[in-house]
Amino acid sequence: METDLQAIEVMPAVVAALREALGPRVVQLPHEFAGRHHADASRMPCAEPIALVRPGSTEEVSVALRICHAHRQPVVTQGGLTGLAGGACLLGGEIALSLERMRGIEHVDAVSATMIVLAGTPLQMVQEAADAAGFLFPLDLGARGSCSIGGNLATNAGGNRVIKYGMMREQVLDVEAVLADGSVVGGLHGMIKNNTGYDLRNLLVGSEGTLAIITRVVLRLRPKPSAVSTAFCGLPSYEAVTTLLSRAQAMLPAGVSAFEVMWPSYYDFYTGRLPELRAPLAGKHAFYVLLESLGADPERQAESFEGFLGAMLEEGVVEDAALASSESDALAFWAVRDAPGENARLLPGRVSFDVSFAIAEVGEAARRCEAALRARWPRANVLVYGHLGDGNVHIVVQEPDWPSTTAREVQDVVYGVTGEMKGSVSAEHGIGTKRMHVLGLTRTPVEIAAMKAIRVALDPLGILNPGKLFS
Amino acid sequence: METDLQAIEVMPAVVAALREALGPRVVQLPHEFAGRHHADASRMPCAEPIALVRPGSTEEVSVALRICHAHRQPVVTQGGLTGLAGGACLLGGEIALSLERMRGIEHVDAVSATMIVLAGTPLQMVQEAADAAGFLFPLDLGARGSCSIGGNLATNAGGNRVIKYGMMREQVLDVEAVLADGSVVGGLHGMIKNNTGYDLRNLLVGSEGTLAIITRVVLRLRPKPSAVSTAFCGLPSYEAVTTLLSRAQAMLPAGVSAFEVMWPSYYDFYTGRLPELRAPLAGKHAFYVLLESLGADPERQAESFEGFLGAMLEEGVVEDAALASSESDALAFWAVRDAPGENARLLPGRVSFDVSFAIAEVGEAARRCEAALRARWPRANVLVYGHLGDGNVHIVVQEPDWPSTTAREVQDVVYGVTGEMKGSVSAEHGIGTKRMHVLGLTRTPVEIAAMKAIRVALDPLGILNPGKLFS
Repeated sequence: METDLQAIEVMPAVVAALREALGPRVVQLPHEFAGRHHADASRMPCAEPIALVRPGSTEEVSVALRICHAHRQPVVTQGGLTGLAGGACLLGGEIALSLERMRGIEHVDAVSATMIVLAGTPLQMVQEAADAAGFLFPLDLGARGSCSIGGNLATNAGGNRVIKYGMMREQVLDVEAVLADGSVVGGLHGMIKNNTGYDLRNLLVGSEGTLAIITRVVLRLRPKPSAVSTAFCGLPSYEAVTTLLSRAQAMLPAGVSAFEVMWPSYYDFYTGRLPELRAPLAGKHAFYVLLESLGADPERQAESFEGFLGAMLEEGVVEDAALASSESDALAFWAVRDAPGENARLLPGRVSFDVSFAIAEVGEAARRCEAALRARWPRANVLVYGHLGDGNVHIVVQEPDWPSTTAREVQDVVYGVTGEMKGSVSAEHGIGTKRMHVLGLTRTPVEIAAMKAIRVALDPLGILNPGKLFS
Repeated sequence: METDLQAIEVMPAVVAALREALGPRVVQLPHEFAGRHHADASRMPCAEPIALVRPGSTEEVSVALRICHAHRQPVVTQGGLTGLAGGACLLGGEIALSLERMRGIEHVDAVSATMIVLAGTPLQMVQEAADAAGFLFPLDLGARGSCSIGGNLATNAGGNRVIKYGMMREQVLDVEAVLADGSVVGGLHGMIKNNTGYDLRNLLVGSEGTLAIITRVVLRLRPKPSAVSTAFCGLPSYEAVTTLLSRAQAMLPAGVSAFEVMWPSYYDFYTGRLPELRAPLAGKHAFYVLLESLGADPERQAESFEGFLGAMLEEGVVEDAALASSESDALAFWAVRDAPGENARLLPGRVSFDVSFAIAEVGEAARRCEAALRARWPRANVLVYGHLGDGNVHIVVQEPDWPSTTAREVQDVVYGVTGEMKGSVSAEHGIGTKRMHVLGLTRTPVEIAAMKAIRVALDPLGILNPGKLFS
């Protein structure tokens, strides 16, 4: 009892006000959450919050922000802490507002193919609820078990099947969110088309916790595919890669659901280091592509997918191809593409990039980056791979025993090429704190000024995730 | 010479400054554009502009806005003047800025499947350029020959194939635009994924000329479909309609590219009044659906489409169906759906609506509207039809010799139901001036306040399309 009173006596006024309004179950003090992990997966530095607020409802989020607003108290919203840009990390002096208690599926409308969920719901729970209702929720990424829908929205998450289904912003029909002053926007509308003023939904999606706290959303569900065709192809040139992409998009009846490209450095590295990987192809090629088509007609689709691959082999677009004849084949192909999941073990101290370009430019951009990196660091691992159908390429650079200053030099090389070739310094991971210094390579000063004006308009006191995105 | 001097003497200072900076070819005075039509297709009132500015480049748009900004001069941006909400109409005292001289395709990138076009380019010119390059530009609407890409973006245009390809916002990768003070945003990036700060592109799309003037855009092209399957179906109930929709989405290999629903009042009215229409079905049904699937595999698709229809007939979801066996059959089916093109002649003085709901709610919403309208005006024509796959329904209400006050009463009925059932008062046409009085039925006061704050942030002097969207 005495300890508690002591704690309350030294409490900042804003924490005392929050605790009084929301109670000790919602508002925890540092000694109550001791040992809790606060950082996201970005490896960026992270401070301790002055209090942890875990609201159970939109109303409680609103009360919390109203109080923080009155005290000009900075707030960092946290979801599953799987972000890769430091957007959820604490810089010091903030309150952490976690949506972990706001999880659950509130409503499934099987006729409209929509679902209302709380923002703290893990992605995998949404995928499973969609599946149980006979639908597909198509967004998918490695962190599915921990990442939350609210975090997926705040960062506009991507993943493997963006080429067919779009990014997170394409999966959401409406958002309910609490603005900095505690007021609530969003009516949880379930209609697909709604041209009534500015697109607040798309403004909040991808805003990385700086404009509002998303509390509930209406998600769009898709028909569950009944046919999967998967192939692993070896190709002679980047030109052949883009030809295969456009032919597949034009000729496959169900379209393309994944088009994952791996450069030889990537393929050789992982198939050499990970003995459990079954190399899908016997020979060596200039490029490797995992091609997938998700459709609705198992019998006819298998026939036309095989016919398509035959035509591409005959034409020389593809040099060699392995067609998955079972689910385990397909899983073996995906294992090659998912090998970077082992990076923490295989490539300590690596520097990673998530850049994008017009599809026609990706080959040249990657060539320039690789050449510059190898010229400067001849013994480094330089692994290139990505979602080519979206123009999105990941580059991983590593050498054991690099001094700590090398990361910045490696960034200068890759971001330099990205800026020169009009690419994006973040295709799908966001800016957070990790990429703030390179935002200006993709966005002009006028654009950043416009973003700042919008931020000030919606959060005049600057309490939502200050120090993130831009300062 | 003397006339010119006189005209210049009475010219407002802002017009004189514009004329001096941009010349008489770009800046025209009222006596020089006498007889020109300024109103859009909304039938809303429209004043004369104090000057007409027709820039030929982004730079000239920027100069024009810099001058207007310095003089606090209101500006209305105009495209093809085919809008249906009055967004391009003049309220009095504005300068009209027309993008008619900024037309043309600047660049086609066949590898990235993108195209850079000037905002004043007519939609049809874009469709034709895409076709010539071996692609499809999927947005399509009746005004294709006159409407401009910039206007399509400003209103986030929809149309018939939204269910497969999305609305205008899904067709654009980046926009270049001039802000109220003349500064230019947008780098004409050609990448699909770009998570670098706020989504300015989606904020400008649908903002109806109130936030910026879009000058150039990077459009996304799609593979040209090689197979078209079309059927006209009669169904027994709204439940059967939504069942057909979800089955078609799950079972048709190429998915659904159009799902146009016509209520019996619609079908009977047009097939009765337009002798050139060939009624696709012999009998009467509770609902009619035009179903289309665009795909890539002509042979196998025809087979599976026919198999699907057979299964739906057997199950009783569909009572009767006509399958198009030729392009002329398909055109005859579409003619029934396109019959409202004759409304100006057939239904003078009509009141039209463009509302949307969650798909599961459309049947009940339409039933309530029809019942209320028929109870109040038993002799009125009440025609209901729409893009049901998007939850979007159009309602046309008309009775000859109605007093002019009736329109507002009819609106009260339909918008009343829309508000009650959490629908949108504008699914695809926008707000403009025509629907400003009902914006509050779909958007909350907090949302409208947030929109106003954003508008003030980007256009502090309020010179861009004042009096539109909200005041």
